[in-house]
Amino acid sequence: MNLQNDLLLRAAKGETTERPPVWLMRQAGRILPQYRAIRERLSDFKELVKTPELAAEVTIQPVDELGVDAAIIFSDILVIPEAMGLDYLMEEKRGPLFPRTIQSDADVDALRTGEDAAAHLQYVYDALAHTKRALNGRVPLIGFCGAPWTILSYMVEGSGSKTFSKSKKLLYTRPELAHRLLDKITEASIAYLKHQVSSGADLVQLFDSWAGILSPEQYRTFALPYISKICTALAPLVPVTVFAKGAWFALPEMSDLNCRVIGIDWNTEPGQARQWIGPDKTLQGNLDPCALYAAPATIETAVRTMLDAFGPRYIANLGHGLYPDTPLDNVKCFVSAVKSHRYKA
Amino acid sequence: MNLQNDLLLRAAKGETTERPPVWLMRQAGRILPQYRAIRERLSDFKELVKTPELAAEVTIQPVDELGVDAAIIFSDILVIPEAMGLDYLMEEKRGPLFPRTIQSDADVDALRTGEDAAAHLQYVYDALAHTKRALNGRVPLIGFCGAPWTILSYMVEGSGSKTFSKSKKLLYTRPELAHRLLDKITEASIAYLKHQVSSGADLVQLFDSWAGILSPEQYRTFALPYISKICTALAPLVPVTVFAKGAWFALPEMSDLNCRVIGIDWNTEPGQARQWIGPDKTLQGNLDPCALYAAPATIETAVRTMLDAFGPRYIANLGHGLYPDTPLDNVKCFVSAVKSHRYKA
Repeated sequence: MNLQNDLLLRAAKGETTERPPVWLMRQAGRILPQYRAIRERLSDFKELVKTPELAAEVTIQPVDELGVDAAIIFSDILVIPEAMGLDYLMEEKRGPLFPRTIQSDADVDALRTGEDAAAHLQYVYDALAHTKRALNGRVPLIGFCGAPWTILSYMVEGSGSKTFSKSKKLLYTRPELAHRLLDKITEASIAYLKHQVSSGADLVQLFDSWAGILSPEQYRTFALPYISKICTALAPLVPVTVFAKGAWFALPEMSDLNCRVIGIDWNTEPGQARQWIGPDKTLQGNLDPCALYAAPATIETAVRTMLDAFGPRYIANLGHGLYPDTPLDNVKCFVSAVKSHRYKA
Repeated sequence: MNLQNDLLLRAAKGETTERPPVWLMRQAGRILPQYRAIRERLSDFKELVKTPELAAEVTIQPVDELGVDAAIIFSDILVIPEAMGLDYLMEEKRGPLFPRTIQSDADVDALRTGEDAAAHLQYVYDALAHTKRALNGRVPLIGFCGAPWTILSYMVEGSGSKTFSKSKKLLYTRPELAHRLLDKITEASIAYLKHQVSSGADLVQLFDSWAGILSPEQYRTFALPYISKICTALAPLVPVTVFAKGAWFALPEMSDLNCRVIGIDWNTEPGQARQWIGPDKTLQGNLDPCALYAAPATIETAVRTMLDAFGPRYIANLGHGLYPDTPLDNVKCFVSAVKSHRYKA
């Protein structure tokens, strides 16, 4: 099927576009009244994730309501641990909780990986296929998964954490066990992303949400090699985006990844990011999500400043996911400020 | 009183020392059995902070037990909001909680500042005086307070936060109110630190614990000018250390602060920190606190690597406070690895 709007894919591949494409991390969610209406009918967040028709519906809502240049499949990075054998609960206020966690060699041995794990995620592939049909070529569809270190940290901690000291303790005290676990997560993620592509994903993004908690040396040892393996496996199929929040220190090394796009958080200034990454990749980001609390005129100025600072070879986005209490009109202001921008010929 | 061990002050002032001084953030605390014994007798963390004899006792415990080259007064950065008029509770597992928070102009108007606020902290000055007498010149005594942005964020959020979106929203929507609040915090902090110095503090450290949550532009606008004002007020009295966790992006600008020492977290490599700060300040840091979970031989290697990378004009420490479950022997291993180091002549 031909895409009517392929700005995102052209920008990802480094082609010249008339303006930057724009989408927002966590665009399908609580900021939209349409989303809240569906969510209120369901007992549980996971019911939404696991019901392909509903997941497809909320995936498309921001395309209709915000006019963004891409849809991103509504799902959760924690479906991978679950597919590997660790069930989780999603508690409304407290976030995810794993009743069982990974502590020992036997725990790692018991995990499914590769196709065995990916086969448990048919509901995601169905949601992608539904979305693809319903989008009918309007915009590209983004698939995603968590990066291995972030997934490991949830599997070991059992929940979010301020310090991630349990998962970091594993890296310092049982590095060989950590590597075995990272290997299994990586193989499951590769199989999972390949299925996402066959089900309709036009681009895939890796979210390394807890990258910033590691030292540069640990990131080099326990995170980058696994991200690299996933990039190399997916690169022949679709453009890959890597977003490692807080890992500014790894940006120079990330320029060597076999991926097209690098996501940037709001701590890193655009010029610095371009200097570290070099000219050969597209950058994505990086407005502070809290900037969308400001008045529309302030948001427009912030967007203009950001677009000028990034220049071309760029995908406009935030530096992190939208916060649920962001006023909808301010999100629309962000999108239209990007869409009114024109690159000078 | 002459100090028998003035390594810390000489290193802070940029003088040549035979080896780097060493202390650890949060060295007085749960890692020490002596601390836990005292803490168990008390109903509340704040009772310990507010009882000068006991605060002095736990301040000195790590000097006795670990052999560190400095004591840091046992207290809390949240005594300043309390002295300004916002009481807080310290809940054992959940951290601090402010029943009332700052939301409006009237809330800011009602706060005490300067000497009016500092006058409510006599218990800290008494604790410093007690400690100073009991130390009897063994090692220097460090005073401290929170940096204004971090204190503002607690006063607005009412507790810790994952996103700090309430306090950041204030910066984006009510910048003039934020500046008025930051001004009052700054004036209270300056008066407070001056009293700390008259009560015996030989060096003072500013902790900007939530620095990393701001964008470079916001840090430049809402954090650095207030830190700068405090540095300039204190610099004629004692050496000042600024530790802005996560604010790697501000390190080049922090080289202009009127302070002697810059603290570095574990995300920033020593060589990069030195390049950004330049040759004219002492650096302090930066081992990942989780590295102290590793085996002693691994800790010794990590310390050697760190000391070699920082070189002279340096104070050995962690890149963040000690985690309470760190094995005591591993903390001792860290200290003795630093103390056995000798700078080449």
